Amino acid sequence: MNDVAAAAGVSQATVSLVLNDAAGTRFSEETRQRVHAAANRLGYRTNAHAKVLRDGVAGMIGFVGDFVATAPFAGKIIEGAQAKAWESGLLLLTVNTGGDKALEAASLEAMLSYKVAGVVYAAMYHRVLDVPDVLAEVPAVVLNSRDRAGRFPSIAPQEEAGGYVATKRLLDAGHRRIAMINLGAPDGELPAAVGRYDGYRRALTEAGIDPDPGLHRIGDGHESGGFDNALALMTGKQPPTAVFCANDRTAWGAYQALAQLGLSVPGDVSVVGFDNQETLAPYLRPGLTTLELPFVGMGRRAVELLLAGAERDGRAEYFECPLVERQSVAVPREPSHLGTGTP
Amino acid sequence: MNDVAAAAGVSQATVSLVLNDAAGTRFSEETRQRVHAAANRLGYRTNAHAKVLRDGVAGMIGFVGDFVATAPFAGKIIEGAQAKAWESGLLLLTVNTGGDKALEAASLEAMLSYKVAGVVYAAMYHRVLDVPDVLAEVPAVVLNSRDRAGRFPSIAPQEEAGGYVATKRLLDAGHRRIAMINLGAPDGELPAAVGRYDGYRRALTEAGIDPDPGLHRIGDGHESGGFDNALALMTGKQPPTAVFCANDRTAWGAYQALAQLGLSVPGDVSVVGFDNQETLAPYLRPGLTTLELPFVGMGRRAVELLLAGAERDGRAEYFECPLVERQSVAVPREPSHLGTGTP
Repeated sequence: MNDVAAAAGVSQATVSLVLNDAAGTRFSEETRQRVHAAANRLGYRTNAHAKVLRDGVAGMIGFVGDFVATAPFAGKIIEGAQAKAWESGLLLLTVNTGGDKALEAASLEAMLSYKVAGVVYAAMYHRVLDVPDVLAEVPAVVLNSRDRAGRFPSIAPQEEAGGYVATKRLLDAGHRRIAMINLGAPDGELPAAVGRYDGYRRALTEAGIDPDPGLHRIGDGHESGGFDNALALMTGKQPPTAVFCANDRTAWGAYQALAQLGLSVPGDVSVVGFDNQETLAPYLRPGLTTLELPFVGMGRRAVELLLAGAERDGRAEYFECPLVERQSVAVPREPSHLGTGTP
Repeated sequence: MNDVAAAAGVSQATVSLVLNDAAGTRFSEETRQRVHAAANRLGYRTNAHAKVLRDGVAGMIGFVGDFVATAPFAGKIIEGAQAKAWESGLLLLTVNTGGDKALEAASLEAMLSYKVAGVVYAAMYHRVLDVPDVLAEVPAVVLNSRDRAGRFPSIAPQEEAGGYVATKRLLDAGHRRIAMINLGAPDGELPAAVGRYDGYRRALTEAGIDPDPGLHRIGDGHESGGFDNALALMTGKQPPTAVFCANDRTAWGAYQALAQLGLSVPGDVSVVGFDNQETLAPYLRPGLTTLELPFVGMGRRAVELLLAGAERDGRAEYFECPLVERQSVAVPREPSHLGTGTP
């Protein structure tokens, strides 16, 4: 352990706390990663890992998700959960049901028969779930959604704060006519659509701007919803100078619509997205300023809660979505540059 | 079973064969899906499923992958493997190692201690693997790669045929100056880079065209590699009229470079990709003509081979990559439209 401490530039006590996962939130992510990297390089094994390698048996945590194969975030959620589980010498028994209820029921029964230490019940997108009763028989945590019956602890993103931060970014750059292309109805079933819209409104209202209903459009979370609604916004009477897109795919569609209209980002229109989708946001040109869904941290926290016993208190933990600054936001041009009529 | 047969429009014998997975390749994918859909709708359970629901226990198949969370295809591979396993009442015990060898070793040991029926050892991208010896203790299949020692059966895409079909598509549209932006060295370690290049050359040579080395560029499989190399190609002395991009992300970069140069797809330049990446290819504008990596089928076949005993004969099965036609290919403009010099 001395060698690991030296390699990581920390004390031996820190190494012990981090590797045996007894540190809580005492250390930064950066410190933790440095310690783990040093341990991996030097081949150091924690007690839990040594036990696994000696006995050839690892305990398991069940992970049930309803992701369809195209969901871009399943990997991040599972990465976080799996990393945390592995630090305690546990493997993830993963079943992706794609929404198949029969598969879900059988998977949960099988997991219980294999005496999993607990179950993470994960949703592809943030909503309110009816969690199967059978989960009451083990420690269980709901991830990226909320348990309607309020029994199980749940972990979800801070949607409203994210919408607020995105909109404030545009206000701080000097924009006043700020549109939002949502991914669902603002009064509907999707907390992401409801929350991000509420945050958008709050930021505008705080800045003394009366939200213009004509500037809030309802897309569908796909590129095409962004494309169609951005076209409509920019060819309307008083186009916005900035657009908050409720997810990065919507922002991509907006970029393509703007390109088709011969408009540039951010020169003509500033854009902010949401998700920080790794295979999309950095590769848009210019790179997309967006909010990050902290799925790795949420996955880790789900397993952490499980290992601590997952108190059946229905508590909901909301993770902040940090702003990721790239190049898609700038000060607005003079209003007379776009559309018709007096500035 | 009568009801399912009626609902699916097939005979009862067909239903039995399909649901009990005794059909081999006798029926088309479409027929199989119709039967499964009807069974799901009517709540019909196979023998295997009935057993699972009765006993509350399902056998397991291990699935070990080295995917990093951003790999766009992990979901498709797992979807196929899981669907096939579930049809036989088995669950997938999935571990994604992200390349962590310690995690991989422990996962395999743990899977063996849980008496999995077999192990699918899957690679994020097609290459030659040194498969851990411990896999010799169970039925095992290598998926999306090849076992260097030639012990385990393996399943991979037909890279060379894919490169040929992509290039032939452009030749058939009338193009003669056809570039390729590869994802790696044509004489390197990646079968995708080597094979797709070989197919490209074969198609050109067959058409009486001597492959021009200046038209083959080595990208890196990311959007940026496509962008930089497309810029270089189009600003060179004799630009191509068509580009075969070794994957869809490369094609996306090419699209962005062409847009920056004020060139249109397919009006000025035709583009073909590879992968049929679900969250990318259909949403590029225009939609990208590409080759499909048949990962769902490959995942299913891996589990099918396992359940049949996975003969330790080192056989390699190669899956065809079908052409997916969209809107990015057209006849070439007159050559004098691009670049300088006499046509």
